[in-house]
Amino acid sequence: MHAIGIDIGGTKIAGALVADDGTILAEERRPTPATDPSAIVEIVASMVERLSEGHTVIATGVAAAGFIDAAQSTVYYAPNISWRNEPFRDRLRARLGMDVTIDNDANAAGWAEFRYGVARDAHDMTMLTIGTGVGGAIVTGDRLLRGGFGTAGELGHLRIVPDGLPCGCGARGCIEQYGSGRALLRMANEIADAGGIGHALAVAREEAGGTLTGGMLAGFLEDGDPGAHHALRQLGLWLGQACASLSAVLDPEMFVFGGGVSVAGDALLDPVREAYLAHLPARGYHPEPEFVVAELVNDAGVVGAADLARIHAESIGAAPRG
Amino acid sequence: MHAIGIDIGGTKIAGALVADDGTILAEERRPTPATDPSAIVEIVASMVERLSEGHTVIATGVAAAGFIDAAQSTVYYAPNISWRNEPFRDRLRARLGMDVTIDNDANAAGWAEFRYGVARDAHDMTMLTIGTGVGGAIVTGDRLLRGGFGTAGELGHLRIVPDGLPCGCGARGCIEQYGSGRALLRMANEIADAGGIGHALAVAREEAGGTLTGGMLAGFLEDGDPGAHHALRQLGLWLGQACASLSAVLDPEMFVFGGGVSVAGDALLDPVREAYLAHLPARGYHPEPEFVVAELVNDAGVVGAADLARIHAESIGAAPRG
Amino acid sequence: MHAIGIDIGGTKIAGALVADDGTILAEERRPTPATDPSAIVEIVASMVERLSEGHTVIATGVAAAGFIDAAQSTVYYAPNISWRNEPFRDRLRARLGMDVTIDNDANAAGWAEFRYGVARDAHDMTMLTIGTGVGGAIVTGDRLLRGGFGTAGELGHLRIVPDGLPCGCGARGCIEQYGSGRALLRMANEIADAGGIGHALAVAREEAGGTLTGGMLAGFLEDGDPGAHHALRQLGLWLGQACASLSAVLDPEMFVFGGGVSVAGDALLDPVREAYLAHLPARGYHPEPEFVVAELVNDAGVVGAADLARIHAESIGAAPRG
Amino acid sequence: MHAIGIDIGGTKIAGALVADDGTILAEERRPTPATDPSAIVEIVASMVERLSEGHTVIATGVAAAGFIDAAQSTVYYAPNISWRNEPFRDRLRARLGMDVTIDNDANAAGWAEFRYGVARDAHDMTMLTIGTGVGGAIVTGDRLLRGGFGTAGELGHLRIVPDGLPCGCGARGCIEQYGSGRALLRMANEIADAGGIGHALAVAREEAGGTLTGGMLAGFLEDGDPGAHHALRQLGLWLGQACASLSAVLDPEMFVFGGGVSVAGDALLDPVREAYLAHLPARGYHPEPEFVVAELVNDAGVVGAADLARIHAESIGAAPRG
Repeated sequence: MHAIGIDIGGTKIAGALVADDGTILAEERRPTPATDPSAIVEIVASMVERLSEGHTVIATGVAAAGFIDAAQSTVYYAPNISWRNEPFRDRLRARLGMDVTIDNDANAAGWAEFRYGVARDAHDMTMLTIGTGVGGAIVTGDRLLRGGFGTAGELGHLRIVPDGLPCGCGARGCIEQYGSGRALLRMANEIADAGGIGHALAVAREEAGGTLTGGMLAGFLEDGDPGAHHALRQLGLWLGQACASLSAVLDPEMFVFGGGVSVAGDALLDPVREAYLAHLPARGYHPEPEFVVAELVNDAGVVGAADLARIHAESIGAAPRG
Repeated sequence: MHAIGIDIGGTKIAGALVADDGTILAEERRPTPATDPSAIVEIVASMVERLSEGHTVIATGVAAAGFIDAAQSTVYYAPNISWRNEPFRDRLRARLGMDVTIDNDANAAGWAEFRYGVARDAHDMTMLTIGTGVGGAIVTGDRLLRGGFGTAGELGHLRIVPDGLPCGCGARGCIEQYGSGRALLRMANEIADAGGIGHALAVAREEAGGTLTGGMLAGFLEDGDPGAHHALRQLGLWLGQACASLSAVLDPEMFVFGGGVSVAGDALLDPVREAYLAHLPARGYHPEPEFVVAELVNDAGVVGAADLARIHAESIGAAPRG
Repeated sequence: MHAIGIDIGGTKIAGALVADDGTILAEERRPTPATDPSAIVEIVASMVERLSEGHTVIATGVAAAGFIDAAQSTVYYAPNISWRNEPFRDRLRARLGMDVTIDNDANAAGWAEFRYGVARDAHDMTMLTIGTGVGGAIVTGDRLLRGGFGTAGELGHLRIVPDGLPCGCGARGCIEQYGSGRALLRMANEIADAGGIGHALAVAREEAGGTLTGGMLAGFLEDGDPGAHHALRQLGLWLGQACASLSAVLDPEMFVFGGGVSVAGDALLDPVREAYLAHLPARGYHPEPEFVVAELVNDAGVVGAADLARIHAESIGAAPRG
Repeated sequence: MHAIGIDIGGTKIAGALVADDGTILAEERRPTPATDPSAIVEIVASMVERLSEGHTVIATGVAAAGFIDAAQSTVYYAPNISWRNEPFRDRLRARLGMDVTIDNDANAAGWAEFRYGVARDAHDMTMLTIGTGVGGAIVTGDRLLRGGFGTAGELGHLRIVPDGLPCGCGARGCIEQYGSGRALLRMANEIADAGGIGHALAVAREEAGGTLTGGMLAGFLEDGDPGAHHALRQLGLWLGQACASLSAVLDPEMFVFGGGVSVAGDALLDPVREAYLAHLPARGYHPEPEFVVAELVNDAGVVGAADLARIHAESIGAAPRG
């Protein structure tokens, strides 16, 4: 049975009609009216209607950055949209007459990798999404780990340094401050300040009026610039230390890295593995998990959201529509 | 259907006949022949035979400190017994002609609390067992989290301090070195060295020939000694910081504290809660979990092991014996 | 016999005709075409030809920032010029028909001080060149220490702080990040941020549009500004600690400080000596080396490069030209 | 021409007649009268006379722990013998009528490895002798680096941690406190305190009355005990970091590890290499040196002392005796 997946980002909303083998049959994108919750309901509803025209659809799944409650119904807090305790599911369900679920976007992406992507043969996987921040998703025993209040898998807020750098979540020392795209930029700026291998970064930053952007850094990484790769290596070493701690808690057979920074591939994964092995509790008595890069980079959110919605709808015996 | 639970510790082996409502119908204890794996099989087998005499029993569950594989069959490594890659399940099953499972002792204790103890109404709980070391058990969505290689829930080895104190697991900075009974003794010795509120501890230590024991420290805690309670508070503050990190990963609705140190009750839980709230990511947007002390302190291992064995035996349609 | 010395900097190339007593007989300067290796060969060749006109010259020595191989032939890496594994010696030798050697610029400067400058009576000296970065040169038993791969004496990359500030060399905690002109500017900015004795620096920085330059800082040091001198003292204390470590390894009778920052004289050397004595291993059993400022500040590179080239040419029996 | 080598240790004096190809022709050992300098002169003189009987001998070289002056004549300070500014060379020369030199014992051992041992094909080598403390020897350009005051190569006192552990030399944070046999024992005790992989060490320590000895630890290392190997790995990681700093200064083509701890071979060298690469300045632009274990473990002191004495005697045209 088909389902609709919607991925609400800070700047755009992506929607797709997804078959039950994970194939995308149709898709579209719209800008996000970030400050107007009612407008978001309207836009999503009209996307769902267009995408499901002529198809039988069982449910709509929505992925969004933020804290979602355990009932997958209310968005407690979304960092990029003006939602605070927003009963988005009920508003959308009322508008569509169809079963609706909401999931954290990193959870949706992780679920897509587990079902149809690089982790499709795994039973226990942990995914870290390295974008501007660090998102997480945990699958254990073939199920998405949601937690008692719906906010499990917020892996960016594992503390890695006591009294460390302040984090946007209000705590300090979270891995998000040491392993995210934003952290990578900070490290690249530090190495640019240090001279030597940071020379080319410093020159480019100067020419760009004093600010290094993610796009510039991506270009330097592609060109093999030693300063940019030094920063990436630091990032990987921190992430590997976090993975060693996560193994003690979750013991996944596979760690999946998604998000924009993960396109660096082995240049990111090599230092991750190096630090993982150096910090793993009981190494020698513990099999080594796989470290891989995600496959479904751009579509993971809509595919995962649709799939989670379908599973929910089937579990409650929801009637298909159309 | 009844099942037998066996808890193999470093110094004694406890066994019990456990009904399917968690009630203990009979029990016995024997010293552990820690250096002789064959003798352990013999002792456990004869305990099982005596305890099951005249009863229909479906399975035997064994709890032991150590790393157990995902098939609940082999002990990779046990810190206090001479087991290395020991195929204990098959040896015992061959000897008994009954379904046998092995579980990590902290997992067995946590499962008992979830099924019959303080967490019986919870669906997502995290238990920390504060004994000589720190053990852990995770229940999520009503299931025990075992992980891809069988070693999930080793919560004592969550890293809390980079390049921190060396840990028995071979890594550094694990919460076991800051939140265990052994850590409590180290902190009590430090406060005794410092004079002031540590004066009474220092005097007692001197009288005891230079060594503070866990029993002495328990007495001081009971008597409200300020030095002992200072050490306990430090322990609780570290544990609360670990719980804040664990909330980001697991998001349990309840944290359960077991093990010998947990008898301190609120004197332990109060600083745990204080540090938890001070370090919780996104506090204000996250409901607060409960912090409670375990109920089944002495029997948790045998009750949990028996229950996990019964569930396994039923899932594979094992035939009852006797 | 005369020799030519060439010093290739990031912005200018200096050349000189040098007599065998270290006297400069003629000199000239040209801008560096930093991104065009072939143009550099051309410019250097034409400088050599003009400078040697009418003189008998035995060799040309080139000094450049960067890693030079043990055969003094190839530049592995130069931070400020687009050289990567550049066979500069062979290209220049082919162009000139004269023996050519390449040396690291700090080595050339150190050798000049040892032969004709402040260390002319020493046999074992260690020189630290405090410019934008920190360069080094080691003379031991009257010979320049080059090392097995040609890169000995990179004293700026002695690690002084584990997991310290990132360095342009790709490692962390190098003395270059604590003892260089760049570090002095960072420290001056920190003291400006802190108010109090940093007030005048903060005002000047504000007036200059937010950026403190090396020239401004030099003026403040000359005027005795307490904030600038506080920063210089921090720099000196770090350098003195590095010298204490270097004494354990190299045991020089004299430490020479060159580079732009060394013009501060005793204002730099006093804290160097203070920290040296405070951190010297086995002090009381170890004679105290001299701490002095270099004499040949501007000419050291060309004089040292010429002298090293002459010594090499004589050792291989090269024929003079002209 | 033969020479005599004498190695004065804290408990015994070893002497050997050494041929000019490094072969030992005769040897003997005597207990050290550690508190009586005159008795030491007598014992050494009679050893030299017995060993040289019937042979033509050109010189006697003495190796001793301690700081020796640049003239190889006076012992400033010896940690294990009651020598303070002892003019040992002149006293022994007067007694023997033969050229005598004194060298630091680690220098003598390093020189032996360079001339006749594992580094015989190298030109630039750095040796670390990992015994109770950490000794060092530096050969650069085929010469022993002695320094301006005779005390170069005291590599155990390279500072690795600012404000680190106090060192017997009066400074803090020296690599001797992180990379010596004594440090290994401290780390083994820490891991024994931590439980887990330290369990067997803790049991053995308890049975031995509370003290772990070097001999016990050597046995545990040989048996593959995980706690002992964890401590050895920590040691190797520190030593590798020190080697990375030493490469920036000395740039050797080979690092040789001698002393009792070096018998661990790759179990020591593997973490040394791992940390070296992780901390090397400009890695990727710097060839990798070899890391090897010394060959002449027991005889290195006497062979090196004899060889250095022969070289000195020949350089001054000393007349052979006998």
